[in-house]
Amino acid sequence: MQKHSADRIGIVETQYFTFAHPPDKFVLEDMNGIGPVTLAYETYGELNEERTNAVLVLHALTGDAHAAGFHKGQKAPGWWHDMIGPGLAFDTGRYFVICSNVLGGCAGSTGPSSLNPETQKPWGLDFPLVTIRDMVNAQRHLIKHLGIEKLLAVVGGSMGGMQALQWAVSYPHRVASAILIATTWEHTPQQIAFNEAGRQALMADPNWNGGDYYGKRMPEKGLSVARMIGHITYMSDTSMNEKFGRRTKDGAKPFKFGPKFEVENYLHYRGYDFVNRFDPNSYLYITKAADYFSMANYTPAVKFLQGIRTKLLVIAFSGDWLYPPYQSQQIVKMCRSAGVDAKCRILRSDYGHDAFLVEFEEQTRLYRRFLKKVHDSTFGPKEPPALIKSFYG
Amino acid sequence: MQKHSADRIGIVETQYFTFAHPPDKFVLEDMNGIGPVTLAYETYGELNEERTNAVLVLHALTGDAHAAGFHKGQKAPGWWHDMIGPGLAFDTGRYFVICSNVLGGCAGSTGPSSLNPETQKPWGLDFPLVTIRDMVNAQRHLIKHLGIEKLLAVVGGSMGGMQALQWAVSYPHRVASAILIATTWEHTPQQIAFNEAGRQALMADPNWNGGDYYGKRMPEKGLSVARMIGHITYMSDTSMNEKFGRRTKDGAKPFKFGPKFEVENYLHYRGYDFVNRFDPNSYLYITKAADYFSMANYTPAVKFLQGIRTKLLVIAFSGDWLYPPYQSQQIVKMCRSAGVDAKCRILRSDYGHDAFLVEFEEQTRLYRRFLKKVHDSTFGPKEPPALIKSFYG
Repeated sequence: MQKHSADRIGIVETQYFTFAHPPDKFVLEDMNGIGPVTLAYETYGELNEERTNAVLVLHALTGDAHAAGFHKGQKAPGWWHDMIGPGLAFDTGRYFVICSNVLGGCAGSTGPSSLNPETQKPWGLDFPLVTIRDMVNAQRHLIKHLGIEKLLAVVGGSMGGMQALQWAVSYPHRVASAILIATTWEHTPQQIAFNEAGRQALMADPNWNGGDYYGKRMPEKGLSVARMIGHITYMSDTSMNEKFGRRTKDGAKPFKFGPKFEVENYLHYRGYDFVNRFDPNSYLYITKAADYFSMANYTPAVKFLQGIRTKLLVIAFSGDWLYPPYQSQQIVKMCRSAGVDAKCRILRSDYGHDAFLVEFEEQTRLYRRFLKKVHDSTFGPKEPPALIKSFYG
Repeated sequence: MQKHSADRIGIVETQYFTFAHPPDKFVLEDMNGIGPVTLAYETYGELNEERTNAVLVLHALTGDAHAAGFHKGQKAPGWWHDMIGPGLAFDTGRYFVICSNVLGGCAGSTGPSSLNPETQKPWGLDFPLVTIRDMVNAQRHLIKHLGIEKLLAVVGGSMGGMQALQWAVSYPHRVASAILIATTWEHTPQQIAFNEAGRQALMADPNWNGGDYYGKRMPEKGLSVARMIGHITYMSDTSMNEKFGRRTKDGAKPFKFGPKFEVENYLHYRGYDFVNRFDPNSYLYITKAADYFSMANYTPAVKFLQGIRTKLLVIAFSGDWLYPPYQSQQIVKMCRSAGVDAKCRILRSDYGHDAFLVEFEEQTRLYRRFLKKVHDSTFGPKEPPALIKSFYG
């Protein structure tokens, strides 16, 4: 782990791209059509003249387009600030990094909290189900709009890794490489089960009101419980022991069943913090998209994997029990048996699933080397010049 | 795994023992006194003349006194029916087996749903907090009442194992041996966190109403979510893959966010089944008792462990990620360093924490051998005679 240094990227602004303007429609996997569709995105670094240095970063379940730098007036940087910047893993001195919020989200992209153009009210549950493939198809519109024929890499952790894999399957000629981190080729029943417990907690909150709570009271308690469940699965037994142990928080004599242990206070904080930034219906839509994700949706999967022209680097963390390393190994095994250039690296970490957000050093080394190799073999050995001295020398 | 055969034990009835009749009080660890206190219990087999063959079985979080045999008119046997009976692990041809429901529970024992004698209304949250030690102290009254000076063994899985360890610490001269299964010497932050998420789900249900729901609508949805979370932690990634895979349940076109995968339907079933048999407030009290459990509550722990006169057999299952094997190893390490006769066995199983309820064969072999040894070394080599031919020969 390494602290982020001041403002390597500096101030950034989220941008918005809208497509499928009426009467056009963006057709979803379930054949529903919606439009217009907006994606929020940010970019860092500059696209070179040859347009060969674009890296698309894809976020996890509740992430957003703000991956690096600072929003004006805000103290917290983007969610992968230590990985994106001059001299970092995704070196903005060499690469043009794009991060796109997902379709169905609530951080500037079209989702259930957006206005339904037919009613001029928030979609709520009338919003159609979206899949990981739909998210990727929408991102393809954004990438085209940015004038990029072929991405040097798509990169993502957790649900971002599912999108990266889907990019390789859906657009094999448009991505030279994919870095899949702490992810899976299909959601397992345990992963589905955790999501379902969260959804049930959320929908049990009477304020959820069948998804129609906009302008009314929010289902805060339900969403908060869903987030608590999530946070337990993002950490590990070891990291919780190290971070909290059985320490208790002193103070006024608490309610008999109020939070007493530090770990309980942490979960409460995480739960209520989430309520302030996330739309409950988006939580339902996006977790469902993850649950439905499976390469086996394509029959036979091997035929689709055979189409992959993308070099895959698949990364797992030893202490990640939510997306355990064996799932990464399965991706590589399946892809190799379909003739795909894929390799797996399992990194040692006690941070659980969160490792991809906190273990920077080894990820940085691996990704820098991988990107250089991919660039040289795809576009020739002329790597994009380092405009700024590398942080790692 | 082995199916239970017909009715080895036959029809049984739950019995009730009440003590601390007013003006007496049963004094709890937090110095609150309550009375009268009732414990529900069942017995199987017969106490020998020497009273040297009594085995006390202690149940997990949501278990009850009905460990074996059948209640009249009911098809499902007790929760450890395959372990207790003639020729089984706890051979009722040799041993007198007692199973006691816990204080704070809701299956016949005094708990928050019992009448507060002062108000003649259910206690609700006025019921004092109880600890694992309080549960054990109450059981000690029951064992005295049954005329037993010294138990041959105390045995329990999960929270039952915590009680068994507490028995050894609190009543070292009253228990010849303890079998601790899939348990811990203190609840870890991850274990606390899962319990807390469940409690928060329950208390978020407006029908919970500060614990005052008796005679009104039950907080069914909240309790159901708590139970779903629990069931995920009782299984394993592997056992869920084997049991459910990604199979879906066909039927009428479901609600967009209704259960679709079999694993979701299973969780819903488990959740709603639980609502019919468990008091929500008891869920709060008992999970808190487990969370507060720690041998480190005794300072210095080693001093208390040194007092143990009990032979300990500590069993863990390789696939149990809720109470991982390292926690059993820690118990044995701590106890041995305090001079206690303790050994650990880790059994191979993919069943997760549920293994102690489904993996019978190896448990049976181990426990039979252990009990015979303990009996011989404690009361002399005259093992209680086998009245019925052993099931395992």
